[in-house]
Amino acid sequence: MTKKLSSFNVLALSFVLAFSSLATAQKADPLPSWNDGKTKQSIINFVTTVTKQGSPDFVPAGERIATFDNDGTLWAEQPMYSQLLFAIDRVKELAPQHPEWKTKEPFASLLKGDVKGAMAGGMKSVGEIVMATHAGMTTEEFETIVKDWIATAKHPVTKQPYTEMVYQPMLELLAYLRANEFKTFIVSGGGIEFMRPWTEQVYGIPPEQVVGSSIKTEFQIRDDEAVLVRLPELNFFDDEEGKPVGINLHIGLRPIAAFGNSDGDLQMLQYATSGTGTRFGLIVHHTDAKREWAYDRKSSIGHLDKALDAAPANGWTVVDMKQDWKVIYPFEKR
Amino acid sequence: MTKKLSSFNVLALSFVLAFSSLATAQKADPLPSWNDGKTKQSIINFVTTVTKQGSPDFVPAGERIATFDNDGTLWAEQPMYSQLLFAIDRVKELAPQHPEWKTKEPFASLLKGDVKGAMAGGMKSVGEIVMATHAGMTTEEFETIVKDWIATAKHPVTKQPYTEMVYQPMLELLAYLRANEFKTFIVSGGGIEFMRPWTEQVYGIPPEQVVGSSIKTEFQIRDDEAVLVRLPELNFFDDEEGKPVGINLHIGLRPIAAFGNSDGDLQMLQYATSGTGTRFGLIVHHTDAKREWAYDRKSSIGHLDKALDAAPANGWTVVDMKQDWKVIYPFEKR
Repeated sequence: MTKKLSSFNVLALSFVLAFSSLATAQKADPLPSWNDGKTKQSIINFVTTVTKQGSPDFVPAGERIATFDNDGTLWAEQPMYSQLLFAIDRVKELAPQHPEWKTKEPFASLLKGDVKGAMAGGMKSVGEIVMATHAGMTTEEFETIVKDWIATAKHPVTKQPYTEMVYQPMLELLAYLRANEFKTFIVSGGGIEFMRPWTEQVYGIPPEQVVGSSIKTEFQIRDDEAVLVRLPELNFFDDEEGKPVGINLHIGLRPIAAFGNSDGDLQMLQYATSGTGTRFGLIVHHTDAKREWAYDRKSSIGHLDKALDAAPANGWTVVDMKQDWKVIYPFEKR
Repeated sequence: MTKKLSSFNVLALSFVLAFSSLATAQKADPLPSWNDGKTKQSIINFVTTVTKQGSPDFVPAGERIATFDNDGTLWAEQPMYSQLLFAIDRVKELAPQHPEWKTKEPFASLLKGDVKGAMAGGMKSVGEIVMATHAGMTTEEFETIVKDWIATAKHPVTKQPYTEMVYQPMLELLAYLRANEFKTFIVSGGGIEFMRPWTEQVYGIPPEQVVGSSIKTEFQIRDDEAVLVRLPELNFFDDEEGKPVGINLHIGLRPIAAFGNSDGDLQMLQYATSGTGTRFGLIVHHTDAKREWAYDRKSSIGHLDKALDAAPANGWTVVDMKQDWKVIYPFEKR
């Protein structure tokens, strides 16, 4: 009996220790890269309110849906969207198979390194570049292409991997929400299949919780194997009015919290915060020209104008990146 | 010290008891409503194989994706799809607001109780009935309509609630897979928003894990509230070739197991089982005219012909409902 009791005690002790370290963890600051102040407090107040059992503002775990824009909200979008930089790299890679690109715009300018010239055709040029680089292969072949690129490509300004150009305070926010039984989703104008190969590793967000723009795919049997082939045709544009539509299609519940940084997120913020009960909207305002970039109303990338005007009346939290964030990127901490 | 040790012991004892009841649960049959035999064994063999740590067939938890058809696979689809019965009930409910339906087909026949006559126009008639009853309201208004209907409507043959017309062996299978860290999804030709209001309660499948057919929605601001309005226009038809397309769009991973009952599931079964590694395909064959219905190659509802022919060569398990299932519905056990 003595021996048995003793092993019981060891077990009990480890059990108690596990609980006490849990208690310590709960007391620790869940958002250490956020400076103390009203921005950080607004997040903590919201989470505390909706998770408080028995409170009239309590939201059951299954309905704690939080949606995050990606470009400019979870990772940097300057000097250009990463997916466009990916497409440009792909054009260079594929050029030997396309001799006609030497004289055909927008490819000719791109191959000469003249990105501005290539973009002269606006959305039409972007569309041609995207379709030439994102379609024609199976979904699994495209996944491999993205994985290979993201593992090796470097950001043109910082020379860091793109997966390091993510915002440390937002990583903490994602983890904090999930620790409080929120389900976190990406809802981005970017390509859904460009994000899925790496979002779980980088953000802890699995493929099925990524919503984004997409091109059409077609089911085919190739050499006795069932595959999906990516077609050069837009299926869904997940931006502005498209974001609530995409949220409803993929998630099927109105989020109780939404996080964005541009006018492309306005409708998602309106949709999340005009439901009943306690709601939370947050805009990341890029105010730090030194550590990151400063831009808003006059920028074509991450254009933030109407949503910034709408924030006060809607009670949305506006993050002043320069004031509110102790660090921007994870690599600053190393 | 004595007191402390004593409370430690109580804690330790409850801890050990919790573990021992867990061990008992693991030894218990996870599929009690399935008769022993090769069908049941094929399921258990598959799950054991892909969850065995260190085995070459091991699949990490995040990639254990299982997709289930709904009509005829998880719940009964005879004498008619439940969603069509819902639509017919809605036509009757809405008739006072549509005096023109008295003379307009397919509504006129429906209102006289002549379902066969109403269906004479084929898919065109079905489309008109669906759009008249599924569009024109907000997504949240439609959710309420579905919830109210499913809470009160009764199956025309058994007089049971529709949520009781589900297959007890399949409920056990869903639970067994989730206990083994599978993510379970519905992939149905039925309407995504017709299923989501009740799938979590009935199947343990949350809204974001439901894939289905959909109509378009439009973002609007109504009385300062952001809403999505359902439009009478098809967005996506999640059947046959559409199922792998829908799976890729919503889940972003190729399933390792798929469960269906008709030719509408053929491409999903092909897609799930032609990937690398150990895979599992299963067809529910409706062979029990006494306890449920018996139908396959000649039925328009749940038409099973090509997929049944394809099963042996692909190594798919075919459930003989009459032989393999001890009970069909949960209410039989009460």
